[in-house]
Amino acid sequence: MKAVVCHHGEFEVQDVAEPEPGKGQILLNVLRCGICGSDLHARHHADELAEATERVGYPHMMRSHEHVVLGHEFVGEIADYGPRTHRRWKAGRRIVAMPMRRNNGVAHLTGLSTQAPGAYAERVLVEESLAFPVTNGISDDHAALTEPMAVSLHAVNRSGVSRRDTAIVIGCGPIGLGVIAMLKAKGVKHIVASDYSPTRRKLAKAMGAHVVVDPSQGSPYDGLEKRGFVVNAPQLFDMALDGMAMLRMTPLPWEPLWRAAEVAGVTNPKRPVIFECVGVPGVIDSIIEAAPLRSCIVVAGVCMKQDHFFPVNAINKEIDLRFALGYMPIEFRDALHMIAEGKVNVDPLITGTVGLSGVDEAFTALGNPEQHAKILIDPSKA
Amino acid sequence: MKAVVCHHGEFEVQDVAEPEPGKGQILLNVLRCGICGSDLHARHHADELAEATERVGYPHMMRSHEHVVLGHEFVGEIADYGPRTHRRWKAGRRIVAMPMRRNNGVAHLTGLSTQAPGAYAERVLVEESLAFPVTNGISDDHAALTEPMAVSLHAVNRSGVSRRDTAIVIGCGPIGLGVIAMLKAKGVKHIVASDYSPTRRKLAKAMGAHVVVDPSQGSPYDGLEKRGFVVNAPQLFDMALDGMAMLRMTPLPWEPLWRAAEVAGVTNPKRPVIFECVGVPGVIDSIIEAAPLRSCIVVAGVCMKQDHFFPVNAINKEIDLRFALGYMPIEFRDALHMIAEGKVNVDPLITGTVGLSGVDEAFTALGNPEQHAKILIDPSKA
Repeated sequence: MKAVVCHHGEFEVQDVAEPEPGKGQILLNVLRCGICGSDLHARHHADELAEATERVGYPHMMRSHEHVVLGHEFVGEIADYGPRTHRRWKAGRRIVAMPMRRNNGVAHLTGLSTQAPGAYAERVLVEESLAFPVTNGISDDHAALTEPMAVSLHAVNRSGVSRRDTAIVIGCGPIGLGVIAMLKAKGVKHIVASDYSPTRRKLAKAMGAHVVVDPSQGSPYDGLEKRGFVVNAPQLFDMALDGMAMLRMTPLPWEPLWRAAEVAGVTNPKRPVIFECVGVPGVIDSIIEAAPLRSCIVVAGVCMKQDHFFPVNAINKEIDLRFALGYMPIEFRDALHMIAEGKVNVDPLITGTVGLSGVDEAFTALGNPEQHAKILIDPSKA
Repeated sequence: MKAVVCHHGEFEVQDVAEPEPGKGQILLNVLRCGICGSDLHARHHADELAEATERVGYPHMMRSHEHVVLGHEFVGEIADYGPRTHRRWKAGRRIVAMPMRRNNGVAHLTGLSTQAPGAYAERVLVEESLAFPVTNGISDDHAALTEPMAVSLHAVNRSGVSRRDTAIVIGCGPIGLGVIAMLKAKGVKHIVASDYSPTRRKLAKAMGAHVVVDPSQGSPYDGLEKRGFVVNAPQLFDMALDGMAMLRMTPLPWEPLWRAAEVAGVTNPKRPVIFECVGVPGVIDSIIEAAPLRSCIVVAGVCMKQDHFFPVNAINKEIDLRFALGYMPIEFRDALHMIAEGKVNVDPLITGTVGLSGVDEAFTALGNPEQHAKILIDPSKA
């Protein structure tokens, strides 16, 4: 079959061996495969990525000198089943699947390891246990967005955001835009998005942001004081003093009331939720510096380099930093269903489709945020 | 009255003006006042501390060139009431209070600002709304530990630790030791404490640690795999694959079961809780490097300097970093009640008592962890 092979950062369409479904696996004909930001990382910084994942005990991440087939955001139709499968779905049924599979008993990341070639190819293998059927209403294009939308959903779930919260999204690449869509789907009442690119700000609006900010012109944190957030320590001191004075004027027993008041935020300020979707050094520090007190920052951007910050600033604001990666299986399934039910509209994200031979050009085009957000590969295309 | 005045890092016992209780305030005769780690910071790094708190909008923190009376961990007896007080308690009644009070309408940190002199003195002012009576069973020494124990309780509450969790405490200074006591009081079933000092490790045992580790000899993270924590990525991959395969063998409808399974940790590993109670550059990075996946790290140590870390390591482990400072009013009250009810035993923490003239020597002695943990000031002592 044909596949795009990456070697030392160069792409080439090659004829490679047909994959054979192993125990519990399904062979899919690839219909669409998205190009992910981590594929961009993998192309040029494979060795750094491999060293980082080796530190968490996974030594099989692709290296730049290896020949690897990328692609982990895909939809395909069932071509064949391997041994010991439940064969729950008919041949030809469309499937999305978590990009993880076993090879000789060891679990690998599909599309990021030579042990599990990805879906920049005519066919790809998936685990039946991690596969989900695509309902008829969804286009191939939209189904292919399940994986990145699951990443965004997971980031949103990590934040613990509720409908009445304010959320700020820093960086409107595909993950940031997905986060905006998921926040909107959850009914979050105030979503602020920040990006230097006018095209990305337009996309942020289309995905559901209520306010978009060009950080060279303004601050995404402006106006938060008016929305009831605590932006400096004296406000916090006054809350404690006035809250306690007020609570103590109530007739006894005042302690249960007091506990309730703390939970309700009388003496305990509410937390804005901020999503870091940039992933370059200095961004976390700049968010800590500018954010309101008690901010919860979900770090979804992947910064490979050493970064710096001032712990005392994070301490004085009682910041929460929650690092997010991937998703749980149920979040993958939820993302698919949210797309199917129209709760999130991924259409604005898709800015191009190429054949296998167009991958190299697509990677170059993705370098310009004015031009593209998500490019899909359609292996049936010339 | 007599007070210890700090100026350019030097202490001197001086005669200062008698404080006058303002609106809503109580004048206390100081019985005991603890020497806090932040007092050590304040003595030699007042200007850095002041700059950091100025960044969160509080410009009244003490500067090294100012003459300031430290002391914010105190117990005292009621000497007088100011105007517009409820006078809930009789003169002579013992009181602990959150060290925050208004001066000309502005809230200040008692003992860390010239606007609100602290309790290294014969008398100190407190706000009636932030005051709590000390029950008869508690000694003055123990009551004076209310404030630092509230700091430790807040750190524990920030972690969301439950009884069935494992907690690891890095650094056994007074805050780390207090955290151990609060974890023990909460019934946390496995508490590991780490410190280079043998004396501190002995104190950690006395406060309730189940295991103590000398980090020059071993790792506090050893053995966590046996306790069911996920220490590398392949374990996480296997959890997802095997968990999903198992869940899918159940008869339909399997989705509610699946959600329950995720919550119960079948496909979603449990989080160990780690307390950073050291506060020097590099410690956060080293914890991220060594901790199990999904660790929740509460940062209670105050690092004033720029620090570095590798976001990709925190991302690959989905680390939570929760920075903690101070406490809520209800936590201050809870700390007092926990001491009163014998739920925490603060006695091992107290390693010395000095008079006002002994403060300078006490600060020097506190530099040696083998010698001291918490030194109290008794102004009635010579």
